[in-house]
Amino acid sequence: MPTRLVPIGDGRALLYVAGQISVVDGKRLTGRCPDEVSVDDAQASARVCALNVLAQIDSAAGLDNVEEVTQLIGFVLSADGFGEQPKVMNGASDLLVDVLGEAGRHTRLALGTNALPFSATVEIAAVVVVRTR
Amino acid sequence: MPTRLVPIGDGRALLYVAGQISVVDGKRLTGRCPDEVSVDDAQASARVCALNVLAQIDSAAGLDNVEEVTQLIGFVLSADGFGEQPKVMNGASDLLVDVLGEAGRHTRLALGTNALPFSATVEIAAVVVVRTR
Amino acid sequence: MPTRLVPIGDGRALLYVAGQISVVDGKRLTGRCPDEVSVDDAQASARVCALNVLAQIDSAAGLDNVEEVTQLIGFVLSADGFGEQPKVMNGASDLLVDVLGEAGRHTRLALGTNALPFSATVEIAAVVVVRTR
Repeated sequence: MPTRLVPIGDGRALLYVAGQISVVDGKRLTGRCPDEVSVDDAQASARVCALNVLAQIDSAAGLDNVEEVTQLIGFVLSADGFGEQPKVMNGASDLLVDVLGEAGRHTRLALGTNALPFSATVEIAAVVVVRTR
Repeated sequence: MPTRLVPIGDGRALLYVAGQISVVDGKRLTGRCPDEVSVDDAQASARVCALNVLAQIDSAAGLDNVEEVTQLIGFVLSADGFGEQPKVMNGASDLLVDVLGEAGRHTRLALGTNALPFSATVEIAAVVVVRTR
Repeated sequence: MPTRLVPIGDGRALLYVAGQISVVDGKRLTGRCPDEVSVDDAQASARVCALNVLAQIDSAAGLDNVEEVTQLIGFVLSADGFGEQPKVMNGASDLLVDVLGEAGRHTRLALGTNALPFSATVEIAAVVVVRTR
């Protein structure tokens, strides 16, 4: 499932968002950073993942109901020795704050890995607190 | 600890399940996909991880008390460039739905990595909502 | 943000702690295990990450208010084929139990990866239950 909602009382719920890869207009953004894809392009891929996370939140609960983005877990398809995952992930983090303001600020895990689904450049999942009434 | 229970009100709790590797009858299923282990065999390893997740849930709260599987995080020991982690992870996802029905459907992160404990083929952790009364 | 607090009723909250890398006195502990950094040194890096996790918990909620450490997610910068991530992560796990006692026991994901921010040897994030009144 793209999302799961867990009520935690007081008209609020934890919304878990499944890992979103960098897909835009049905086209996957693929390739390893930095040897196949530049840091700038990887950042754009992270931004696309964040847009997909936002779309899932909106579909499940409505963006207006976001109380806070609690946790972002992001993986960047990385060559051995590449260490600029935080810079890449800023593409996602900055977008969440641009769209949601203070509510979009979050704790983050920025990680690298040698292999992702379909060789997507970035995969991002989230946990969000939303108002449900 | 294998599990931790967090009450969230209303007779419900979040049950966190520690990462379960592919161990069956005390024997670890090891090796990298797809060069050392086929996609089919990796899928069987993912199924074994899911059985171990179910065993932990049952021991901590009872399978009958599962309200929903909220999040599954799965790592597949992957050769560079391998991208069929979602297919591998379906071995786990399908089992959860077979056993738990609609409650077994979940959000998922399907990820690859170059290194896992004891070179296990798959490691899977979960967050589940259970009824506690 | 370093942490995010999610009230779950009954004067308790989930505290999410962002991924902490192995930084001590402003110096990053970097390098891949076991070819660049020994298992013992990686264990010391994991311990440093755990100290940083504890510092974040203390700053956000006070160590005295920890009810339980629910989940620890740890990544060890690993050469292909390295499988002693659990041993490395024990550097973090043992410290949490030393400092917090029974409350410090946790579910854990011990994982390897080929790439981490700034080539840090270890990155660890946590979810903790704290008392807020």
